[in-house]
Amino acid sequence: MVNQVQRVEDTWRTCSKSDSSGASNSGCESSKESSRSSTPVLDTDRTDRLRDKMRRRTESGDHWFSLEFFPPRTASGAVNLISRFDRMGSGGPLFIDVTWHPAGDPGSDKETSSMMIASTAVNYCGLESILHLTCCNQTKEKITGYLSKAKRLGLKNIMALRGDPMGADWEEEEAGFNYATDLVKHIRCEFDDYFDICVAGYPTGHPEAESYDEDLRHLKEKVDAGADFIITQLFFRADTFLKFVRDCRAIGITCPILPGIFPIQGYQSLRQLVKLSKLEVPEEIMQVIEPIKDNDAAIRNYGIEQAVGMCRVLLESGEVPGLHFYTLNREVATMEVLRQLGLWIEDPRRTLPWAVSAHPKRKVEDVRPIFWASRPKSYIYRTQDWDDFPNGRWGNSSSPAFGELNDYYLFYLKSKSSKDALLKMWGEELTSEQSVYEVFTSYITAQPNVAGHKVMCLPWNDDPLAPETNLLKDELDKVNRRGVLTINSQPSINGKPSSDPIVGWGPPGGYVFQKAYLEFFTSSENVTALLKVLKKYEPRVNYHIVNVHGQNTTNAHDMQPNAVTWGIFPGREIVQPTVVDPVSFLYWKDEAFALWIEQWAKLYEDESPSRMIIKYIHDNYFLVNLVDNDFPLDNCLWQVIDDMFELLDNPPEEQPAPKGLSDHEKQDSIV
Amino acid sequence: MVNQVQRVEDTWRTCSKSDSSGASNSGCESSKESSRSSTPVLDTDRTDRLRDKMRRRTESGDHWFSLEFFPPRTASGAVNLISRFDRMGSGGPLFIDVTWHPAGDPGSDKETSSMMIASTAVNYCGLESILHLTCCNQTKEKITGYLSKAKRLGLKNIMALRGDPMGADWEEEEAGFNYATDLVKHIRCEFDDYFDICVAGYPTGHPEAESYDEDLRHLKEKVDAGADFIITQLFFRADTFLKFVRDCRAIGITCPILPGIFPIQGYQSLRQLVKLSKLEVPEEIMQVIEPIKDNDAAIRNYGIEQAVGMCRVLLESGEVPGLHFYTLNREVATMEVLRQLGLWIEDPRRTLPWAVSAHPKRKVEDVRPIFWASRPKSYIYRTQDWDDFPNGRWGNSSSPAFGELNDYYLFYLKSKSSKDALLKMWGEELTSEQSVYEVFTSYITAQPNVAGHKVMCLPWNDDPLAPETNLLKDELDKVNRRGVLTINSQPSINGKPSSDPIVGWGPPGGYVFQKAYLEFFTSSENVTALLKVLKKYEPRVNYHIVNVHGQNTTNAHDMQPNAVTWGIFPGREIVQPTVVDPVSFLYWKDEAFALWIEQWAKLYEDESPSRMIIKYIHDNYFLVNLVDNDFPLDNCLWQVIDDMFELLDNPPEEQPAPKGLSDHEKQDSIV
Repeated sequence: MVNQVQRVEDTWRTCSKSDSSGASNSGCESSKESSRSSTPVLDTDRTDRLRDKMRRRTESGDHWFSLEFFPPRTASGAVNLISRFDRMGSGGPLFIDVTWHPAGDPGSDKETSSMMIASTAVNYCGLESILHLTCCNQTKEKITGYLSKAKRLGLKNIMALRGDPMGADWEEEEAGFNYATDLVKHIRCEFDDYFDICVAGYPTGHPEAESYDEDLRHLKEKVDAGADFIITQLFFRADTFLKFVRDCRAIGITCPILPGIFPIQGYQSLRQLVKLSKLEVPEEIMQVIEPIKDNDAAIRNYGIEQAVGMCRVLLESGEVPGLHFYTLNREVATMEVLRQLGLWIEDPRRTLPWAVSAHPKRKVEDVRPIFWASRPKSYIYRTQDWDDFPNGRWGNSSSPAFGELNDYYLFYLKSKSSKDALLKMWGEELTSEQSVYEVFTSYITAQPNVAGHKVMCLPWNDDPLAPETNLLKDELDKVNRRGVLTINSQPSINGKPSSDPIVGWGPPGGYVFQKAYLEFFTSSENVTALLKVLKKYEPRVNYHIVNVHGQNTTNAHDMQPNAVTWGIFPGREIVQPTVVDPVSFLYWKDEAFALWIEQWAKLYEDESPSRMIIKYIHDNYFLVNLVDNDFPLDNCLWQVIDDMFELLDNPPEEQPAPKGLSDHEKQDSIV
Repeated sequence: MVNQVQRVEDTWRTCSKSDSSGASNSGCESSKESSRSSTPVLDTDRTDRLRDKMRRRTESGDHWFSLEFFPPRTASGAVNLISRFDRMGSGGPLFIDVTWHPAGDPGSDKETSSMMIASTAVNYCGLESILHLTCCNQTKEKITGYLSKAKRLGLKNIMALRGDPMGADWEEEEAGFNYATDLVKHIRCEFDDYFDICVAGYPTGHPEAESYDEDLRHLKEKVDAGADFIITQLFFRADTFLKFVRDCRAIGITCPILPGIFPIQGYQSLRQLVKLSKLEVPEEIMQVIEPIKDNDAAIRNYGIEQAVGMCRVLLESGEVPGLHFYTLNREVATMEVLRQLGLWIEDPRRTLPWAVSAHPKRKVEDVRPIFWASRPKSYIYRTQDWDDFPNGRWGNSSSPAFGELNDYYLFYLKSKSSKDALLKMWGEELTSEQSVYEVFTSYITAQPNVAGHKVMCLPWNDDPLAPETNLLKDELDKVNRRGVLTINSQPSINGKPSSDPIVGWGPPGGYVFQKAYLEFFTSSENVTALLKVLKKYEPRVNYHIVNVHGQNTTNAHDMQPNAVTWGIFPGREIVQPTVVDPVSFLYWKDEAFALWIEQWAKLYEDESPSRMIIKYIHDNYFLVNLVDNDFPLDNCLWQVIDDMFELLDNPPEEQPAPKGLSDHEKQDSIV
């Protein structure tokens, strides 16, 4: 597991290591240019260029892998692919790349375009990504437009390809793009050193090249024109690649050369790929495959074994710093190969408690409001226009200016489930508020609902309960049954090691802390009792209670955020990645209430009883968040809820009608 | 002790409370104007105006006191007075005021001027201060000049007085300053609402006024012209003051009226004061005093009793929100009166671990490098030109631009002890490095040195050991004896309540933490052993080791500060008031080494053996700082030092001559 630790340490290393190595001896000259306020704590794998990351990993002998995907055809395919990015991203690829499909309007804003898929990978999934780009039959203006757009979206790496000519009668154009070399030159000419550029290498020569040597010379030209590294076409024998590398080195190609690995996953896909790439499958492989060509499982198992064996030879050769996988947008085979090679990170160390975006603009970001913990993509979307991001601290009196809600139902924010599936989970027909409580309880307990369906998601939670939240399962179960509809929570943590598999994050040797947090919807009757109970918990518990109309009650300072997650690490300032921010809470409130209607009520017919029940909750319930500030003690928030139920169950007997509330108390009470 | 808690809570309250009270109901409009990065966490008693503080304390019924001082005649008197500010400031005065001595060049830059004394109180002692200003015989230009200078120095409050005319034949000048009212008007005219203005009230009428009523009318004019509150001349009977307040209210004076309390401290000083102020001492007091006029102690005891009795009546009247004391620059009597009244804070709660400056420019400052922990005034002086101060976090790659050392031996940075006293403490004659070690050991243990003198300070420590450092006394004793000359240290703290009397700071209900820190000078031989030992403690211990020439060895990131003190509080972001900052360390290094020469070596004759010994240490020793990052475990720094001694005492036997150090190790080794 050496890789893991190195990875996280790498992510935490600041970028100035090489620039400032003289500072410790020379005084402080190198620091003069930079300003105090904008410097990041965490940084910086994120600021680093892909080529620098490769260099460091190569130097340290820390093998990596990368994954190639192609853009989907349909919107639901896009939703699936992005879920796959999240799942495969958790294994720790150094980068992913997205192919360019000239026929699929690849540079457009469509949710299925190469450009948007790559952008989503960077911005929402936090993956270092390479966008492919083909130049043949394209004008310079068009290409420059694509590159500008890619840059604007936070993409930093381009795979420069010629692409397949459209039509058979293609001829070279003068002053046009005839070869990938032209594209490399164009990128360097128009965008200087901004992009890291990758080019393709052909271990058996490009099918259209006059000869293997001629093709090597073309590759040398591409590198000389400014390419940073090479990814090869797939091949079936380790020797093929190793000879190719020797030949490249012999003619002076010194940049990294990454082998393209294709685990055979089925007979048809192999045939198709071989036809497209004009490769020959070696006899020894065909001999194994032909007899089992109708047995998909057998072929896949063979493909895995074959790929693992070949990769082992490559890695042991010392010539291969990392492996590039042609996934064909599938998970199983590639993940299995990586697991067997020991490159897949089963239990990835988190840099922060939330997934960090890979957009360079967000590189310093290390504080977010906790409200979006279960909807990080929504948070990223709603803050995409921010000029700078909080780092180190949120700061009070901030002016978050969250993006509007009206267009946030982008495909990647939509539920992954169909309307049918949602109705099965959340109830074909609701009969009372109680039936809503039961949906929440089913979700929390992971037990089937009355109709026998498991509730895998809620409008506020795209995924099943996080392992951390599981720690609170019994308590959550109990309160949801009684209409405390929890949507976000975390336990208190008093200094667990940063390596803790459930709550840990950040570099090794640190300690992480949390204040207990609980967020839920509940009825105004409950809130009235809750507010009475909360007086007993002053100042230990901070609360914010708001309804859809913005009626807001709090005992917290209006502008002061409350840090609820923080970490202490060797040789660093304090990191506090999540806060309860009172200003952001009011933006979150709009989103949280809107989800009742947009994702749940609208499943039902207008005016139907089911819809009216959800609408009633939307209109009348309050959104409550509670923080227990006393993190070293046992979480008191469950006791607060118990006390609330106790008060509701056994109201004080001799309470005279209005009971003479003071003016102050009257003002505080909500209903 | 209600006062204490209220005080600290007040200090932590942010200033926007009243402005933003609508925000919780109305969305976030009020936050739009402010920016994220520059907002303070702690704030803001400091931003608040004195008159607002008075109002809040009055409203909450939290009685306060304030202290009046006059400027000293000599530089050493100034040093003493500033020490007194620190001691009396710890008792929690709401403000102090400094009188204006027209004959003493009061507006000059001299260390004894009224202006500089008040500026020092604000900037270096962190005391809210009022500068007196008299206008009689002054041109408007001169007065405006004084006020501009006061504003520039961070002074925010003026006591506007006429002052005594110089010479007997004074006549009113047209368009000049004839009365304090003219000065009040001038301040409001030229500086708008910038200054809080105080004026003097005369409970028995001004001696030059035509009548008591006439004087009351003058007072009303002063208030109407823009004064914010009134401090009265001293008086001897509570009734005198209470009647005066009633009379003021009767003619429409509504601002706070603070009684001037004069604890009788001696027969001569009473006579002199009475003569100057043209007051009559009541018969009942004279009858007590006359018989004991030669017994100073008896008079002082009576004065305390008399003042306490009168103050009790005043406070119980409900008309008196706070008491103003004429200290005559003495401590004992005033402190005793305040103690008996329960107003003196014996164990003041600290807002931060270090004393916060009262200059408005520094109001957001809440992070400092730990190196100046024992020399906070030097830190303030060297950073006085900074445009902004770190708040929330130090940030890396900062550009501190510390002020030069060349003129930092201002009077308030000089040692408070005479050359003679220093020689007694630090040795009339040094015979070896060992005799220097003994000085450090005597300081640490508070035991007399060989000559029988207690060592009360060192060049790096103006005061005896802090209570917190006392926790480490035994360990410090042991290592100093062997030439690990400690100048700064703190123990590790894993979540003590913020109310802890020794290590606590910040508002109630929080928890404070520390990483163990140790800073010392030691020989290059020791450092060579230490560096070998430290390899065993990677990455737990961070070190910075530097000699006077700037040869620097560290295992910490060049630009990354390490937070070594932090606090977690209800409803707030994390506060981290001290850091080990690698960039600042190199500035501190210059100062720390210079102190050997400037404060110690120069006590001895040029070329004398004593001087040469100090010079040798200055030239050859290293300054070392160590941080144990693992704060929840027992501090390992003592074990590090023990291991170093162990290695020196028992060097590995079979070590072949050069032992084949790697290039990297060679580079790391210093000597």
